[in-house]
Amino acid sequence: MSQWKQVQQLDIKFLEQVDYFYDDNFPMEIRQVLAGWIESQDWDMASNHESMASVLFSNLLTQLERQCTQESNFLQRHNLKRIHQQLQGKYKGNPLHMAAVISNCLREERRILSTASMQEQGPLEKSMQN
Amino acid sequence: MSQWKQVQQLDIKFLEQVDYFYDDNFPMEIRQVLAGWIESQDWDMASNHESMASVLFSNLLTQLERQCTQESNFLQRHNLKRIHQQLQGKYKGNPLHMAAVISNCLREERRILSTASMQEQGPLEKSMQN
Repeated sequence: MSQWKQVQQLDIKFLEQVDYFYDDNFPMEIRQVLAGWIESQDWDMASNHESMASVLFSNLLTQLERQCTQESNFLQRHNLKRIHQQLQGKYKGNPLHMAAVISNCLREERRILSTASMQEQGPLEKSMQN
Repeated sequence: MSQWKQVQQLDIKFLEQVDYFYDDNFPMEIRQVLAGWIESQDWDMASNHESMASVLFSNLLTQLERQCTQESNFLQRHNLKRIHQQLQGKYKGNPLHMAAVISNCLREERRILSTASMQEQGPLEKSMQN
């Protein structure tokens, strides 16, 4: 199961934490429509290598354009178009920053998933891990 | 049929015109989720009467909160929450401006619907109208 699918199955108290760090810097629409592709890239490494960050930025825009073309729902297409424009404006001169933002979001998701998983375990399992 | 439903059935060239005037000042999500309610209010009059604009602004926020509570999709709920916060920040001190923005969007939609309708008519119908 993709990390994003696991996130969406979290309890509301954890989802509210996820809500908190998704904003215009990395709109949640992108996380949703490109979930598999996003999770298969190394954003952590890209956030330290400008040429890699540039390639990922360019690929992300291409993928978004493709999603726009395929999207039949008017509102969704409108949102994807606007996000495409916003990202171009925001990260064209600084793809390293985009890679750092995405890397950070994925790391925060993993942290929340891990916390949620620990809380689901009973006291016996926890003590066995320690 | 609601005006918004008619808009969504327009040809792509007209939809692109609609795309153009929906932005963060009046996010398209609101137009979609509150379509019926929005069309049944007099935004034109509200844009000239501060007390009426304040009431409509407050009612719009209440309706948005209700939609948030009822929405089961995580991404949609996230978007509605963010829009609620954005609108509060943007129009709390100036509800007249919000009323003017919405009034203008609805008027633009009617203009585009009217243009599309004229273009669909053949030359005979057009000449009979003149």
